[in-house]
Amino acid sequence: MRRKSKGFSSEEKKEIGMTAEKDDFSDWFTQLMLKAELADYTDVSGCIVFRPSSYAIWEKIKVLCDEKFKKLGVQNAYFPLFIPEKFLVKEQEHVKDFAPQVAWVTEAGNSKLSERLAIRPTSEAMMYPIYAKWIRSWRDLPLKINQWNNVVRWEFQHPVPFLRTREFLWNELHTAFSNENDSLNEGKQILGIYKEVCEDYLALYGMEGRKTEKEKFAGAVFSEKLHYVLPNGKAVEGPCFHHDGQNFSKAYDIKFLNKEGKNEHAWQNTYAISTRMLGVMFAIHSDEKGLILPPKIASNQVVIIPILFEDTKASVLKKAREIQDKLKEFNAFVDERDNYKPGFKFNEWELKGIPIRIEIGPKDIESNSVIVARRDNRKKETIKISELQKKLPLMLSDMQKSLFERSKKLFREKVENADSLEKLKKVIEGKKVGIVSLCKSEKCEDIMKAETNGAKALFISEEKIKNEKCIICGKKAEYFVYAGKSY
Amino acid sequence: MRRKSKGFSSEEKKEIGMTAEKDDFSDWFTQLMLKAELADYTDVSGCIVFRPSSYAIWEKIKVLCDEKFKKLGVQNAYFPLFIPEKFLVKEQEHVKDFAPQVAWVTEAGNSKLSERLAIRPTSEAMMYPIYAKWIRSWRDLPLKINQWNNVVRWEFQHPVPFLRTREFLWNELHTAFSNENDSLNEGKQILGIYKEVCEDYLALYGMEGRKTEKEKFAGAVFSEKLHYVLPNGKAVEGPCFHHDGQNFSKAYDIKFLNKEGKNEHAWQNTYAISTRMLGVMFAIHSDEKGLILPPKIASNQVVIIPILFEDTKASVLKKAREIQDKLKEFNAFVDERDNYKPGFKFNEWELKGIPIRIEIGPKDIESNSVIVARRDNRKKETIKISELQKKLPLMLSDMQKSLFERSKKLFREKVENADSLEKLKKVIEGKKVGIVSLCKSEKCEDIMKAETNGAKALFISEEKIKNEKCIICGKKAEYFVYAGKSY
Repeated sequence: MRRKSKGFSSEEKKEIGMTAEKDDFSDWFTQLMLKAELADYTDVSGCIVFRPSSYAIWEKIKVLCDEKFKKLGVQNAYFPLFIPEKFLVKEQEHVKDFAPQVAWVTEAGNSKLSERLAIRPTSEAMMYPIYAKWIRSWRDLPLKINQWNNVVRWEFQHPVPFLRTREFLWNELHTAFSNENDSLNEGKQILGIYKEVCEDYLALYGMEGRKTEKEKFAGAVFSEKLHYVLPNGKAVEGPCFHHDGQNFSKAYDIKFLNKEGKNEHAWQNTYAISTRMLGVMFAIHSDEKGLILPPKIASNQVVIIPILFEDTKASVLKKAREIQDKLKEFNAFVDERDNYKPGFKFNEWELKGIPIRIEIGPKDIESNSVIVARRDNRKKETIKISELQKKLPLMLSDMQKSLFERSKKLFREKVENADSLEKLKKVIEGKKVGIVSLCKSEKCEDIMKAETNGAKALFISEEKIKNEKCIICGKKAEYFVYAGKSY
Repeated sequence: MRRKSKGFSSEEKKEIGMTAEKDDFSDWFTQLMLKAELADYTDVSGCIVFRPSSYAIWEKIKVLCDEKFKKLGVQNAYFPLFIPEKFLVKEQEHVKDFAPQVAWVTEAGNSKLSERLAIRPTSEAMMYPIYAKWIRSWRDLPLKINQWNNVVRWEFQHPVPFLRTREFLWNELHTAFSNENDSLNEGKQILGIYKEVCEDYLALYGMEGRKTEKEKFAGAVFSEKLHYVLPNGKAVEGPCFHHDGQNFSKAYDIKFLNKEGKNEHAWQNTYAISTRMLGVMFAIHSDEKGLILPPKIASNQVVIIPILFEDTKASVLKKAREIQDKLKEFNAFVDERDNYKPGFKFNEWELKGIPIRIEIGPKDIESNSVIVARRDNRKKETIKISELQKKLPLMLSDMQKSLFERSKKLFREKVENADSLEKLKKVIEGKKVGIVSLCKSEKCEDIMKAETNGAKALFISEEKIKNEKCIICGKKAEYFVYAGKSY
């Protein structure tokens, strides 16, 4: 469907604004993507356009992570998109999990390639043969190399913008150490960085937890991730840390001469945060009016809308620009378009998630005040112009905090204990995540997933098991896990 | 071949340092890539690793361009890697030129795709169908969207790191206007930005010029590029501007309602700068000792090497760190490694292109001075420690300027007039670029290329033709062109 050119009629307004209820998550999310101009669909299923407004947020996330990574000695680099099939198959667990999702290049120009090339689903198989060349002695360690790139996983499930796309953007940080202890310590540091960015900037509450053996990264010793729950009850795996131990270094022959002059295999970690987190943020914070963005991640914190009448237009515009000048630190801008009415502009910037709207008309100038509207709770208040610079930072930081608290509340509401399979089924049907006791058998996880129409073990709870039984086989449980459907 | 762990013996030193002469360009360049740790080869021919030291420079180029683009209203975004075959074939000239170099995805997991997907060689065919959706009225214009991404062109010529790679990194900026005049004006602005970055930061002199009809971008009305000549006499096409007129907007149906309420096709431009420019910079400035980097683009401008003896070690290190603190603005670092001798360190940082080396030993401390060595001319001088902060900026800016002047001199030395085909053959054999008079026939360009073993028309000179004849057919010449072999 083609977008109509903008106008004023209520019919057109209806088409431009959101119409779906948030409870109808799928429709609501699609509308949000298109109407807030965050993403667009393309003719390649599962491949979206990251439009400027969402891509700008991704660029911010990159800068935030990069600054923190660099303090730990991480260097950015770029490795090829194509991985020869023979490299991919070196680590058996790894290839088994990724092969069903690999997009293969088999032809170039008019020629058939002699060997298929995988489009990287992740770059272990490309980077580690090179690491094996670069790492000779303990002096070359630790090696900490990060890439911000595009990867492709040809999923066959229904794609959803940002949350499940066949091509996505991410960082992949691959580190190698001369000893296990240092590699384990790094895990906490990097996960801490991701958590900080997601909490302090994206205002998202997530729970950190270790994956079960069945769900861990293919080839890793263990995997730890941050987990989020969307309003529709589906979980999303966020930033991750995989401790590879010496699994990959043995498969790819990454050895170093230690201080005693003996050859050892390196200890390795990998980490990632992806554009999926944008989807989590859009889905959790936004409402039926459109996008809500945490102020610290928004490109513009303030929009100023002048209420224009013929006779006072010049003075109102002048004042609006003066205010803009004072609010530079918030990237304030004046919506000066004179072919749209104020109400249309209010709706548009609400739809697009500008955290604060300032309305200024001739009467406001007389009283030296403006009306300030907050996007998250849609509250309006009158503020003296002279007090804007003092009050806006407080309002923005309150909004940032409030969004985080709301996301924490949502998470807690979306989680429920389930002491039996029957209870878990009800929890899942109620669009929630269950906490269940399980033994360590992969078979029980398979049964749980089949019986609940898709709930998998998301992560292991830190709460200790006492005498609970596995909800599937009834044998002694080994741990509590959070179980739910997920993207 | 595996890199040996670092040591002191002269044999090892020889292996670590450069051994090739710059006249032996191909060997020299390969050594420079590997030994200065700029790039590494992979098992996929034509796909290289951009190692941290070269990738950091690319990141700087991105930031420099982005800042300037944004002032012109350009927004960054990201479009899919995959282009459906049916999109690619819409613009006939475009597909004809790119099809022979396209890498095709034909399989995903265990499935054969119903339609082949091209890995983008450039994104017109993906972006413009979307532009057609987004652009409805003159109010939606200009639209200025830029991507920093990876593209693949499966060239069958011998690959060379940075200069000719099958996958490379670039920006592709695609703009659309409601009138031709604005689109043409923008061309000058953006080419100006590229030129500024290449001259002021990469210290590279290049000549701007329009391509002949035969050599212009497939689908464009005309193409203008910056051109460089390497020490081996081969030309390189640098940043480019393609004016597409309404060619693509007609092929992809990008229409807008003008102020008079009539539908018109948009006027379009595209622009790019690629990682190829890193190769140009490395090739032009560096020498037989290794990499030379213009100070403004180097990650670290200064390395401090303490001359360590057992009894004075503590005081020398202390002083070195004090100097480092004072030279923070130059990202100075102290090479404190005590398992390498000073001479080894001198060689290593020369190889890796740190613009300035400071040597400090116990005697220097007594005289409150240090020895300062410049990487480009390898001159050494003694400078009072108290004067470093004053003198280094002058030295660095002199180095920056001197590298640019040297590149300009090289360019001029590498260009020679050729008033006949015979003369041109000699010029090309002598590893230079010729200036020749040509008619506008594509056939004459073909003959020129065949007769000279590969010299093509690089760009049209601004010098006006008087009565010269085409050096191929002898008919009236239409213009002078720079003709040479190129990457």
